[in-house]
Amino acid sequence: MPDPSRTLKVAIPKGSLEQPTIELLAKAGYEIYVSSRGLRPSSNDPELDLYLIRAQEIGRYLGQGFIDCGITGYDWAYENDVELIDLGELPYSRATTRPTKWVLVVPEDSPIRKPEDLEGKRIATEGVGITQRYLKERGITANVEFSWGATEVKVPDLVDAIVDVTETGSSIKANRLRIVDTLLTSFPHFYANPAAAADPWKKEKMDRIALLLKAALCARGKVGLKMNFPAARLPELLEKLPSLRRPTISQLSEEGWLAVETVIDEIVVRDIIPELKRLGAEGIIEYPLNKIVP
Amino acid sequence: MPDPSRTLKVAIPKGSLEQPTIELLAKAGYEIYVSSRGLRPSSNDPELDLYLIRAQEIGRYLGQGFIDCGITGYDWAYENDVELIDLGELPYSRATTRPTKWVLVVPEDSPIRKPEDLEGKRIATEGVGITQRYLKERGITANVEFSWGATEVKVPDLVDAIVDVTETGSSIKANRLRIVDTLLTSFPHFYANPAAAADPWKKEKMDRIALLLKAALCARGKVGLKMNFPAARLPELLEKLPSLRRPTISQLSEEGWLAVETVIDEIVVRDIIPELKRLGAEGIIEYPLNKIVP
Amino acid sequence: MPDPSRTLKVAIPKGSLEQPTIELLAKAGYEIYVSSRGLRPSSNDPELDLYLIRAQEIGRYLGQGFIDCGITGYDWAYENDVELIDLGELPYSRATTRPTKWVLVVPEDSPIRKPEDLEGKRIATEGVGITQRYLKERGITANVEFSWGATEVKVPDLVDAIVDVTETGSSIKANRLRIVDTLLTSFPHFYANPAAAADPWKKEKMDRIALLLKAALCARGKVGLKMNFPAARLPELLEKLPSLRRPTISQLSEEGWLAVETVIDEIVVRDIIPELKRLGAEGIIEYPLNKIVP
Amino acid sequence: MPDPSRTLKVAIPKGSLEQPTIELLAKAGYEIYVSSRGLRPSSNDPELDLYLIRAQEIGRYLGQGFIDCGITGYDWAYENDVELIDLGELPYSRATTRPTKWVLVVPEDSPIRKPEDLEGKRIATEGVGITQRYLKERGITANVEFSWGATEVKVPDLVDAIVDVTETGSSIKANRLRIVDTLLTSFPHFYANPAAAADPWKKEKMDRIALLLKAALCARGKVGLKMNFPAARLPELLEKLPSLRRPTISQLSEEGWLAVETVIDEIVVRDIIPELKRLGAEGIIEYPLNKIVP
Amino acid sequence: MPDPSRTLKVAIPKGSLEQPTIELLAKAGYEIYVSSRGLRPSSNDPELDLYLIRAQEIGRYLGQGFIDCGITGYDWAYENDVELIDLGELPYSRATTRPTKWVLVVPEDSPIRKPEDLEGKRIATEGVGITQRYLKERGITANVEFSWGATEVKVPDLVDAIVDVTETGSSIKANRLRIVDTLLTSFPHFYANPAAAADPWKKEKMDRIALLLKAALCARGKVGLKMNFPAARLPELLEKLPSLRRPTISQLSEEGWLAVETVIDEIVVRDIIPELKRLGAEGIIEYPLNKIVP
Amino acid sequence: MPDPSRTLKVAIPKGSLEQPTIELLAKAGYEIYVSSRGLRPSSNDPELDLYLIRAQEIGRYLGQGFIDCGITGYDWAYENDVELIDLGELPYSRATTRPTKWVLVVPEDSPIRKPEDLEGKRIATEGVGITQRYLKERGITANVEFSWGATEVKVPDLVDAIVDVTETGSSIKANRLRIVDTLLTSFPHFYANPAAAADPWKKEKMDRIALLLKAALCARGKVGLKMNFPAARLPELLEKLPSLRRPTISQLSEEGWLAVETVIDEIVVRDIIPELKRLGAEGIIEYPLNKIVP
Repeated sequence: MPDPSRTLKVAIPKGSLEQPTIELLAKAGYEIYVSSRGLRPSSNDPELDLYLIRAQEIGRYLGQGFIDCGITGYDWAYENDVELIDLGELPYSRATTRPTKWVLVVPEDSPIRKPEDLEGKRIATEGVGITQRYLKERGITANVEFSWGATEVKVPDLVDAIVDVTETGSSIKANRLRIVDTLLTSFPHFYANPAAAADPWKKEKMDRIALLLKAALCARGKVGLKMNFPAARLPELLEKLPSLRRPTISQLSEEGWLAVETVIDEIVVRDIIPELKRLGAEGIIEYPLNKIVP
Repeated sequence: MPDPSRTLKVAIPKGSLEQPTIELLAKAGYEIYVSSRGLRPSSNDPELDLYLIRAQEIGRYLGQGFIDCGITGYDWAYENDVELIDLGELPYSRATTRPTKWVLVVPEDSPIRKPEDLEGKRIATEGVGITQRYLKERGITANVEFSWGATEVKVPDLVDAIVDVTETGSSIKANRLRIVDTLLTSFPHFYANPAAAADPWKKEKMDRIALLLKAALCARGKVGLKMNFPAARLPELLEKLPSLRRPTISQLSEEGWLAVETVIDEIVVRDIIPELKRLGAEGIIEYPLNKIVP
Repeated sequence: MPDPSRTLKVAIPKGSLEQPTIELLAKAGYEIYVSSRGLRPSSNDPELDLYLIRAQEIGRYLGQGFIDCGITGYDWAYENDVELIDLGELPYSRATTRPTKWVLVVPEDSPIRKPEDLEGKRIATEGVGITQRYLKERGITANVEFSWGATEVKVPDLVDAIVDVTETGSSIKANRLRIVDTLLTSFPHFYANPAAAADPWKKEKMDRIALLLKAALCARGKVGLKMNFPAARLPELLEKLPSLRRPTISQLSEEGWLAVETVIDEIVVRDIIPELKRLGAEGIIEYPLNKIVP
Repeated sequence: MPDPSRTLKVAIPKGSLEQPTIELLAKAGYEIYVSSRGLRPSSNDPELDLYLIRAQEIGRYLGQGFIDCGITGYDWAYENDVELIDLGELPYSRATTRPTKWVLVVPEDSPIRKPEDLEGKRIATEGVGITQRYLKERGITANVEFSWGATEVKVPDLVDAIVDVTETGSSIKANRLRIVDTLLTSFPHFYANPAAAADPWKKEKMDRIALLLKAALCARGKVGLKMNFPAARLPELLEKLPSLRRPTISQLSEEGWLAVETVIDEIVVRDIIPELKRLGAEGIIEYPLNKIVP
Repeated sequence: MPDPSRTLKVAIPKGSLEQPTIELLAKAGYEIYVSSRGLRPSSNDPELDLYLIRAQEIGRYLGQGFIDCGITGYDWAYENDVELIDLGELPYSRATTRPTKWVLVVPEDSPIRKPEDLEGKRIATEGVGITQRYLKERGITANVEFSWGATEVKVPDLVDAIVDVTETGSSIKANRLRIVDTLLTSFPHFYANPAAAADPWKKEKMDRIALLLKAALCARGKVGLKMNFPAARLPELLEKLPSLRRPTISQLSEEGWLAVETVIDEIVVRDIIPELKRLGAEGIIEYPLNKIVP
Repeated sequence: MPDPSRTLKVAIPKGSLEQPTIELLAKAGYEIYVSSRGLRPSSNDPELDLYLIRAQEIGRYLGQGFIDCGITGYDWAYENDVELIDLGELPYSRATTRPTKWVLVVPEDSPIRKPEDLEGKRIATEGVGITQRYLKERGITANVEFSWGATEVKVPDLVDAIVDVTETGSSIKANRLRIVDTLLTSFPHFYANPAAAADPWKKEKMDRIALLLKAALCARGKVGLKMNFPAARLPELLEKLPSLRRPTISQLSEEGWLAVETVIDEIVVRDIIPELKRLGAEGIIEYPLNKIVP
């Protein structure tokens, strides 16, 4: 029963994470409707009050308490450097399933080989805070300047090094650059403002969202597997295929046969199916899942 | 066994409902192939003879008997004002799951506050019949003129009020207009020509299509839920969660555990999963459905 | 456990089959990542070394042994005329589920009515080898020239006939052309180089891929069907609906009811559901499948 | 000097004529700015009050006096059947420079061969008024129904004939239809409301716009041609090339040479240039024009 | 003669000004070739060494001397607050010919009515420097925070006011916001680094570019007008139409007629052409211009 | 006067040269209308019978006499190796004004350093004839195989070298390849079949098209320059600026001033304008040209 008098202010990251985040929320049961110019989306849960905010700024507005909770990268929360409650990592990303990496990059033929070589140099980056904290921890003094974009083109003419984001590293290679070090590895997290987390109604609401987001993510890359199996060979099956953890086994009407059903990583299917056939499984089917409660 | 000598003439609405209708038919088991300029689609059912016709005109051609049956909005069937057999409402729409509304709209600062204020005024609308019947029922005399589109821009310079379609009302607000009244709420229906409905072969064919369309629609917004559950706590589960109507319960090989499986509204999942965990459910998974026979 | 020291070189057809092939591989469990200019895709299986090569050339490079295996049309393998091991037909195509046909085409009003009328004529085609072997088998001598594309426009001004590819025949009709004969019907196949097929590690790897591709294709157009059924009427069900081959039947907790589950062709569903209801089935649901192990 | 207290209400046709009309106005000196959702464009002339209205409705609102003047097709003005002042034909169109034709169309194999064959038949058209007036003039009685679009697909299943718009006739041929008669040939016109035309300030303003629109249209397909020419051969030039009407001839500093300059149809240039060279012209150049005052 | 040993480092603004700047340079005689990922364009002048840099950063890199000269908005040069040589304003912009305005914006119903009401408030803006200098000049203390975009949505939930860029003000009205004050009006300028401006070779090169940019801009909105005119009425023409400043007048072969040619503002043409006809001008044509040397 | 009984069959290259060729023909006075699927364009010259044919095949069909004349690259005419009449080079190309180059390309680190290193190697190329003639001239024996596209990815895995087309060389660098030699440099030419060139009517028609194509190309990169100049300094002007070849000079009404007009390369304008100002020129304007008769 929604409580009409209460709402939770939730920030969704505008930009490259926007579409994957909206799809993840849909899988979790929350349909988000973004109108063409709209920066205040609506949803199928009247208790949610939604804001589309740049990932870079969500941490700041969470810290100031204008927003109760939101999804943003660990990197930007770190850059913002405010006190937040972490409700859990959400391991998805823009295009692949790999985390975002912040890397220190120089031209292929640069004399800079290790972080210490940055002493006295000039670095351009969109993550000024990330870079300055990294240098400080190592006792290095360098000139860090904010880059508004097109960062890769700046070395070596305008700066000595850059700190930039990469998912696959392919654009770095194409520009004939070299990675010196990785400063940070980052997935999105679901963060809360501390005061909001102290409010029982908001806390329970946020915990539920976190649970469903994790259930939806958990179902990614997993599938249901179902087969008929000769009862006599069940122990052999369980011994040989430990990845079939705790299958649901039920009696079939046909004597001597069991229905075996389980959930496994999709990537394991390609290895396990030939084994199952060898052990006598019949009618093996694989079906998709929406959520797995962790 | 398809009867090669018999076909059913079916109209599909061309325009904004076209894509959702074709997707719904696909879910119901009827693949429709529309070629780039083609207005006579083909399908995977040789007994169907398909026509792409504007939603506004389907009622007319059904009434005249040139087509046996078709999907069109209740609004346009009402506008056409012909005798049709209604084989059932199909609650889907262009973008959301909300019905189309025909609303009487005026500028925010117009003196028109209630339908009676329209007396002697000029109204532009794409639904001339809908508007005239509405006025007649209320004994109001006004000048209704057909609008070829861009209706919103006509108030207040060219007409005093408009009757226009809206799903969300957002464009009305953005144009600084105000809704005075709702004339009609409309979902698509599956309609038949009376003579076609009197032909047993056509009637059975149309009933089957209607059943499958409803089964496909019924599965929208519903999901399958499956879990292992301690047998001892089953009564508590059934009592506390009445939304789990008539679950399928089967024995597991493991003593004291049951497999519980049910179909529920997707929107309920986000509330029910925390409850299920509390009651002792394990291995909860949610999976998608194609059809639910109502 | 992937063997880092071993890889299988696999060719994926670049062009119109590219997207459907990548989707099929994904369904089989192999995610392929193609970068914007990249002709060397990566994947989620480190043992695969992937090449995007035009379908026309895959046969050639497989024959020369530069590639171990690959997916390409039977037509192009036949055109290339090299010795390959056929690991199985994969009945999918660009847009529909129909095979590609190579047809001999002339203008509607051409005097050419049968293959023999080609004697001494000029034919343009992208499949010079296919056409020449066809003519040779029939003892016909004609002038076959390679066409770089836009083949349809060449009759009757530049050549007397063309041999061209079609899936639906619609473009042939629109150009007022006529089909004289079908030279070849072709689906993609999974082919291996003979030397690669003699290497046990590669052979096992290729067999596994072939099995999973077939399992994914097998699930296309099939669905899972699940229902509760009165135990007493089970024999009647099985007799009347032979398409429900070998359902999985398990006991329900409720006395006298069984859970019946099976996999059937999606196209049969629209005929079978009314029957099932008549026989007393309840809670009929249809759900999608990813793979069916054949 | 713009008079801030006075404005002229001008309608621009929304839809397929919109872009060419805005480009023509720009050539005439009036820059029109249409915002993304805006139906009330702004311009670089503060005395203009602009409306984007469907071509079909401009005649109606001009007749009612809500708009002072506007550009719309002769066909739609005729369809609307209201009294308007015609300020001149503007021979441009959507894509080509050919006028729009309203044609009576039937299937290639229809028994309808001449207008009289329509007696008692059913005709679908977007131009109900145009069609009814055409039939009335010929004493033919037929059933004319309004078509909301996709008119071509309606013959022969839903109606016996259609009256539709064509610029090139190519889509008619592709659909295997046949033209029986042409009802109307139409270019856009610049029309005024009679009361507006009686207001001196508005009349002068509209005349000026009409003059500039015609000057801009006049320059389409015309170019400037400039050359040096031996004075002695001038009479021969003027005699042989009558298309060089009234050239501007001026003295050059070089003895015995004249500068000859003229405006001609671009399409004539390809024939005249070889002649000019033969007659001794040198330094022939062709340059583009914006306006030619007629 | 290009000096192969010398180059001028020129920055072109990447982003919304990029395309109009490249078009302006082309009109000035400098063709710029930008490859798809390329941030180092090439050109038809081998003495230019080009960089695509964000408008926000050009001032910084000019100030540091890494670049000799570049085009960027006055606003961003002001924001960067470095010492630059101004080689001239270039009055063009993204879409229209209006300058960019930086405006202080609040919700329509905000209590903030004048700049002083900002005391103690929170302001989000992309132009932190511009905003802080504005506040400082007025002795106002407020909290200015950097906005990464989507600034408009932040009032009133996240901040009290914003300082944002506008060309037409239309998006401000659509979002129901109100402009309190204009901080800055800005066109692009051509700026040089002081050291580069002290190098004679670079200075001459930059002056030439500046002259040609201005000549190209000067020709925007101007056209050439050419006509034949009766010699006797020339004094009357020159008296009545002072906007025809200093026309080029030459003798025609025809007695009593002159060729009159001039350059005027395109916007004046619509007023002057009716006058010219009245005064006896014939053969009036208007033609486009590329450059006018100021 | 078009001769309705005679037509010239003209081939236009389909593919990357299609759009620039159609634009060039338009500048020359021939408007070409290509419908969406149409491979037989129409035009504003009824004597032309147009064919869209792949550049690779135009030479073949010209040689066979099915087409009278056509525009295709010198490279493909050379590849086709047939006897054609060359009516002139047309120095335009796809994107830039640089010719197409056919280059021998290997991986950056390949041991192949000079053509002779190809002995016994395998080469993939779309230009098999070009490559074989190149090798033969040098007495090199290598295996040349036809490549259907994506040629760059084939080195070094599938072949040792490729012969590929490049305009700018940028894609070669990006793929870490190295150019060993240039086989051919090619612009489009206007070619005729020898028999067609022997027909006087066709010959005159083709010569006229050739002249106009060259006049249109000649105007590319050239502009008209016009100024008022003090008569006394004219000799100085002509001496100092030899690039102002043969200007048109006429008397102005104003004593002591001349009107000077000329056509020059656009690229020279940026150098000459400062000089002109220094010499006393006033009212300098630059205007665009359509054609210059060479």
